[in-house]
Amino acid sequence: MSAVFDLTAELIRRPSVTPDDAGCQALLAERLARVGFTIEHLRYGEVDNLWATHGEGGPLLVFLGHTDVVPTGPVSQWQSDPFEPVVRDGHLYGRGAADMKGSVAAMTVALEQFVTAHPDHRGRVGFLMTSDEEGPTNLDGVRRVAEHFRSTGEHIDWCVVGEPSSKATLGDLIRVGRRGSLSGTLTVHGVQGHVAYPEKAKNPIHAFAPALAELAAERWDEGNADFPPTSFQVSNLNAGTGASNVIPGTLTALINFRYSTASRAEDLRARAEAVLGKHGLDYRIDWNLSGEPFLSPANGVLRGAVVDVCRELCGIEPEQSTGGGTSDGRFIAPLGAEVVELGPVNATIHKVDECVSVSDLEKLPSFYQAICERLLG
Amino acid sequence: MSAVFDLTAELIRRPSVTPDDAGCQALLAERLARVGFTIEHLRYGEVDNLWATHGEGGPLLVFLGHTDVVPTGPVSQWQSDPFEPVVRDGHLYGRGAADMKGSVAAMTVALEQFVTAHPDHRGRVGFLMTSDEEGPTNLDGVRRVAEHFRSTGEHIDWCVVGEPSSKATLGDLIRVGRRGSLSGTLTVHGVQGHVAYPEKAKNPIHAFAPALAELAAERWDEGNADFPPTSFQVSNLNAGTGASNVIPGTLTALINFRYSTASRAEDLRARAEAVLGKHGLDYRIDWNLSGEPFLSPANGVLRGAVVDVCRELCGIEPEQSTGGGTSDGRFIAPLGAEVVELGPVNATIHKVDECVSVSDLEKLPSFYQAICERLLG
Ligand SMILES: [Zn+2]
Ligand SMILES: [Zn+2]
Repeated sequence: MSAVFDLTAELIRRPSVTPDDAGCQALLAERLARVGFTIEHLRYGEVDNLWATHGEGGPLLVFLGHTDVVPTGPVSQWQSDPFEPVVRDGHLYGRGAADMKGSVAAMTVALEQFVTAHPDHRGRVGFLMTSDEEGPTNLDGVRRVAEHFRSTGEHIDWCVVGEPSSKATLGDLIRVGRRGSLSGTLTVHGVQGHVAYPEKAKNPIHAFAPALAELAAERWDEGNADFPPTSFQVSNLNAGTGASNVIPGTLTALINFRYSTASRAEDLRARAEAVLGKHGLDYRIDWNLSGEPFLSPANGVLRGAVVDVCRELCGIEPEQSTGGGTSDGRFIAPLGAEVVELGPVNATIHKVDECVSVSDLEKLPSFYQAICERLLG
Repeated sequence: MSAVFDLTAELIRRPSVTPDDAGCQALLAERLARVGFTIEHLRYGEVDNLWATHGEGGPLLVFLGHTDVVPTGPVSQWQSDPFEPVVRDGHLYGRGAADMKGSVAAMTVALEQFVTAHPDHRGRVGFLMTSDEEGPTNLDGVRRVAEHFRSTGEHIDWCVVGEPSSKATLGDLIRVGRRGSLSGTLTVHGVQGHVAYPEKAKNPIHAFAPALAELAAERWDEGNADFPPTSFQVSNLNAGTGASNVIPGTLTALINFRYSTASRAEDLRARAEAVLGKHGLDYRIDWNLSGEPFLSPANGVLRGAVVDVCRELCGIEPEQSTGGGTSDGRFIAPLGAEVVELGPVNATIHKVDECVSVSDLEKLPSFYQAICERLLG
């Protein structure tokens, strides 16, 4: 089979469930070192990060990805072993096939071909991998690498993220930005008591109810040309001892804003707290800003190059979206980089029987290589 | 010591945590059989019930109580073994001392003295004990005995419940009724999804919020001369998978009405469901009516007798209350009985270091005996 197919299969065979890299990065580093890349292994805690560069000076174009995968879920529900790559009906099956070992292999093959064809290309090309993208905290992955880059003064001009962005066919959608994510852990304090003596208790569920209704009904902003309106969700709400005759003493809620560049995190915090305060709640809220929104501008050099490549190689105009969740691009964008995401069809990611179209996989290196050609060729 | 003290101590020594009677009822049956009572043991499931009567025909005055106790909680927090009766500072300590082995012993001693003094008293006097009053369901206790009475046509005219009703001193408060308790288990259905794709999900927390606010703010009735207004409480509210990035698919809530004779259970149900329906919720609610309200009328014969006895024996006008939780009186009242509750101070019930004043305990048989004298003497 092809180089990209074989490398994807090799990566799928390594059961790299977060934060375990399971040897993926060593394999990639060896390949890139062989074609002249400088290799740096940045291990933080239990997380492996790989930083490989080729060339000198600027500008710097980085390909960003992750070698870790989400857990398989019940293996018995898979048609075949999730860590044993197998082709059925034109698709390569295995955990990580689409998210995102296919992209990682394609980036590697593209870079091998690009630096071999252009040993003296303009500026530098970089390859950044982490084994902590799918975990709950992402503390020791690209977040930490970005801090390292900040301290060493590394400047990234452009960053291509290999997350599976496509909807139905390769290149039909690229991500040109992401919403920010602001979470809060809310505790509302009441006074515990017996349901038969409500006058001696203060029910935090009842106290919170009108504030919750107001928060859920609030329109936080109207969005803008690039982003949909900010969305607010209560993901978890818990109160009660389990006993049906006890009025609980506290209520806890996890809330989350996915917010556009039309709002600022500090304003959303202040507005939420104003609602809680207006209803006289005795509360505490701990905020966590897990990522600010970022956007590649409409006239961005990278965005233009990626759109051109999609047009040229697949003959369609890609949808330029800012939807979906967050990605590790949120850590690179604040360094001043323009970030665009392009990868295979995401229909099966995080599910049983995850797969990638073999023909899409075979085409993917040419997309990444064409981006290199345009920007550094 | 006195007969009532010794019998209370004997009962405390039997660790009769619900539904285990631990031999209490056998001891009581033996005592009452010795003075001429007819004994019936009604065992349902794991629960012991004792039904002892003396006399012929009507009217029938019943003394109602329970031999079971709540668990001790952490024994290390007790000053002395909860199942080893001990006197300190004029109080008898032990689990059940106040709730309600003291009352049970006092009723037994009162009945022994009454039937000995009046072997040919008017009507019948009965003594009904269960070992399933403190449990969560009470299915096989007085509820089942009441069904049995209904099927055998047993008619009860008056019922004195020995629950610890007093606040600061013996006889300062009697219960002349209880509110009803109507519970509901509510499930609100939404559509689970990822917080980044709220348009594909339907958050049941957000859907329920305005209905919850409306239910919590509702004034269900104004109460009446005998009862405070109906109270509504949400005791438990749960939604969420634990993950902060998942919009939950369902929400569950446990709700409870403590309702007065100013409202009917079916009306409260209908009004709550109307609120849920008005907000367009996809919901299911399972109702459980665990007790209807009952009230001894202001001119009730038993109520008058108990008030007179308190006035006479402790020299104070007892407060005539319908407050507090439910009691097993709820199962006897629907048989057509007038129900009044009188027992020792309840300050320590269900707590560590539960105790009863020894002097109150010594006086208590005379209260119960005086009620017998007035009604059947
Ligand atoms: Zn991914
Ligand atoms: Zn009790």
